[in-house]
Amino acid sequence: MRSLIDILELSAAEIAELVATAEDIIANPSKYAEACHGKKLATLFFEPSTRTRLSFEAAMYELGGQVLGFSEAASSSASKGESVSDTVKVVSCYADIIAMRHPKEGAPLVASMKADVPVINAGDGGHNHPTQTLADLLTIWREKGRFEDLTIGLCGDLKFGRTVHSLIAAMSRYARVKFVLISPEELKLPSYVKKDILQKKGIPYTQTTDLESVMPELDVLYMTRVQRERFFNEDEYVRLKDSYILTPEKLKTAKASLSILHPLPRVNEISVAIDDDPRACYFKQALNGKYMRMALILKLLGVEV
Amino acid sequence: MRSLIDILELSAAEIAELVATAEDIIANPSKYAEACHGKKLATLFFEPSTRTRLSFEAAMYELGGQVLGFSEAASSSASKGESVSDTVKVVSCYADIIAMRHPKEGAPLVASMKADVPVINAGDGGHNHPTQTLADLLTIWREKGRFEDLTIGLCGDLKFGRTVHSLIAAMSRYARVKFVLISPEELKLPSYVKKDILQKKGIPYTQTTDLESVMPELDVLYMTRVQRERFFNEDEYVRLKDSYILTPEKLKTAKASLSILHPLPRVNEISVAIDDDPRACYFKQALNGKYMRMALILKLLGVEV
Amino acid sequence: MRSLIDILELSAAEIAELVATAEDIIANPSKYAEACHGKKLATLFFEPSTRTRLSFEAAMYELGGQVLGFSEAASSSASKGESVSDTVKVVSCYADIIAMRHPKEGAPLVASMKADVPVINAGDGGHNHPTQTLADLLTIWREKGRFEDLTIGLCGDLKFGRTVHSLIAAMSRYARVKFVLISPEELKLPSYVKKDILQKKGIPYTQTTDLESVMPELDVLYMTRVQRERFFNEDEYVRLKDSYILTPEKLKTAKASLSILHPLPRVNEISVAIDDDPRACYFKQALNGKYMRMALILKLLGVEV
Repeated sequence: MRSLIDILELSAAEIAELVATAEDIIANPSKYAEACHGKKLATLFFEPSTRTRLSFEAAMYELGGQVLGFSEAASSSASKGESVSDTVKVVSCYADIIAMRHPKEGAPLVASMKADVPVINAGDGGHNHPTQTLADLLTIWREKGRFEDLTIGLCGDLKFGRTVHSLIAAMSRYARVKFVLISPEELKLPSYVKKDILQKKGIPYTQTTDLESVMPELDVLYMTRVQRERFFNEDEYVRLKDSYILTPEKLKTAKASLSILHPLPRVNEISVAIDDDPRACYFKQALNGKYMRMALILKLLGVEV
Repeated sequence: MRSLIDILELSAAEIAELVATAEDIIANPSKYAEACHGKKLATLFFEPSTRTRLSFEAAMYELGGQVLGFSEAASSSASKGESVSDTVKVVSCYADIIAMRHPKEGAPLVASMKADVPVINAGDGGHNHPTQTLADLLTIWREKGRFEDLTIGLCGDLKFGRTVHSLIAAMSRYARVKFVLISPEELKLPSYVKKDILQKKGIPYTQTTDLESVMPELDVLYMTRVQRERFFNEDEYVRLKDSYILTPEKLKTAKASLSILHPLPRVNEISVAIDDDPRACYFKQALNGKYMRMALILKLLGVEV
Repeated sequence: MRSLIDILELSAAEIAELVATAEDIIANPSKYAEACHGKKLATLFFEPSTRTRLSFEAAMYELGGQVLGFSEAASSSASKGESVSDTVKVVSCYADIIAMRHPKEGAPLVASMKADVPVINAGDGGHNHPTQTLADLLTIWREKGRFEDLTIGLCGDLKFGRTVHSLIAAMSRYARVKFVLISPEELKLPSYVKKDILQKKGIPYTQTTDLESVMPELDVLYMTRVQRERFFNEDEYVRLKDSYILTPEKLKTAKASLSILHPLPRVNEISVAIDDDPRACYFKQALNGKYMRMALILKLLGVEV
């Protein structure tokens, strides 16, 4: 029995295998329509995340399975003082696989050690969210046709944004990848990420506060939200926030082949005027997330199609 | 691709077609039991409405489909500042059709313009609630066998009650329909409804504050709730509220063939003593709502049975 | 049409029949996998209870049926002032069977009198919770192979714990059962339970405040939570609480064949160090609850397999 808590638990070969399964699902959905008939997914969301929850549910339904669970802690036994360990022991009686979202870092890991069924981390605090990274990876793959030879711009909150750290870790395994880190000073990529991943593996990267100056070189632009509460003072926020809002104007110098990603939900960091631009991939990314979750469920349940 | 936001988007011919489908579903439920196998309905309820949500869910299940969604805004991404447009773009990746309830007028219309799948308005603020009107129409049809030649009493809050306005609009298309408007002065039918629909089409109507005096002439009596908060002063409310509570006593002069409708939930505006009266149709109306939602889902998904 | 509100509505013969069905489901799950295809269970939870709700949902899914409902009153029409009677009349249009949890004693009974479909009481206030008792019974049966000749220890809050009262009532029908009542003075079994059941039927029982002294004689030990708020003063609580926490130390004198049950959720009344002890049955009990709910749904729907 196998769980998925951190994206790095998957080898590059396993990522390739999940990507291949997802591509096959996209090409032949009916082949998979009853693959999980009679199986049940439990979505244990100790904090709300509609998008992620609905994506998991859609994934399981498209595999012919069923879904049960809760969408916020208030409706769970946690409010009666039950431990996460006990909850997953009991839920193991009701479901074949668990997707867990929890505000506390490490809770899904603890759960995976106690559950009698596979546990998928659907986001734990500021820590890990591996199925988001799987969505990002399939999007890069489908848009670019490769994981190698890419200049990837990461823009916005690189300090707290967990999806950015996971994506760097996941992409650092491929040849000739270069990162361009675009953020305000306050929200720069933490030095442990630079040291432990980029410098350790000798991966080239540059840092800048200016999105427009680096736009022409990017193959992928991964936007994230710059949250007001991350800034030390309001003046800084007001001064900087517009620099990290993507507009058609700023896209003028971008490659025609650029792929724009965003983990969503978006507030205002990408202008809606860009939604119809063929380079905008963020809604495709949501769709890709569903397919990767399908592939992952199949893998963890050991279902052969 | 087609959505349903306002009942008037459906022609009289389309209403007749939906009624015919609903009648066929009632007669041959097993014929439809797998009609939507592999399809998914998303119920996006930005405000709670158990009855409507469960009716949609039951409808989809009886067609063999699946359901996902949320039952209140607190569990949705809206709480993270996402726009309704973005939400439905993403949900279009997860579902084949959307039923949306929203406290803001017009939100389902905006959603229908952005979604890649059909959107059904499941109630938006004080505005539209077309599937309630479909339930009302099927009930009138099944009880009366016709939409023409009917004297329809509308009783209670005719000012704010959206179901009343929609029913008037829908029924105004049939020949020899007459309306009797029964309400306190404060809650009379707005003059724009009278002018734009009744007077414009030359449809006869009378207005009264006295339910009992008009009871003998009614073929249909559509009750609505008179909410305390609608009154300008408490004295008025106390003086008037009992006039608009239907009791066995008040029914004494009614036709034996009268049909009593109510959109539910009821608080106290119809005495429970009437529930077993054969003229009480409000629970049948809830059942009819399910069948019309089934017919509508089939139509919007373009499923032929 | 038949409902289940109180465990005593089931005869000993019916309990035996449900146990036999559950055993057959465990042995041949695939035989039942489509038994309720096309049927719908409504879970109407007017107060949250994740464990019970998920158990019912899993039960219905493993029978091939569907589930709809709500998990707390806030998302229900009750918040608009609708009566429980009206809610179940309407839900009868949407589902084939109802599982209802309600904070008010007697609400599921009222519901069962108004609904057009069977109603299962999934817990009403401090009163009844018959499917928990079914879970307890199947666990005793599967662990002991009999309902007769058992010494059953009931430990903790015997005053307010409804599961304890129901288990005593259910087990009092079998020959040579003896109860050992272990609780602080403040939380002793109410005298009406002793009088109406134990003394009336001449069933032997002893009372003690000391768990360790009676441990060696027990065949079954049913633990319940001692809630701080049940105590008259904090000193008493602090002095007594540890006496009712089950630890490996306290188990030293227990029979090798002891079966430890707990209705869950547990807070700290059973040490996690006991979870791997073969005598710990509380997680099996949760699993057994699912199978008994499956058997009950089949029985109340009149489905023959």
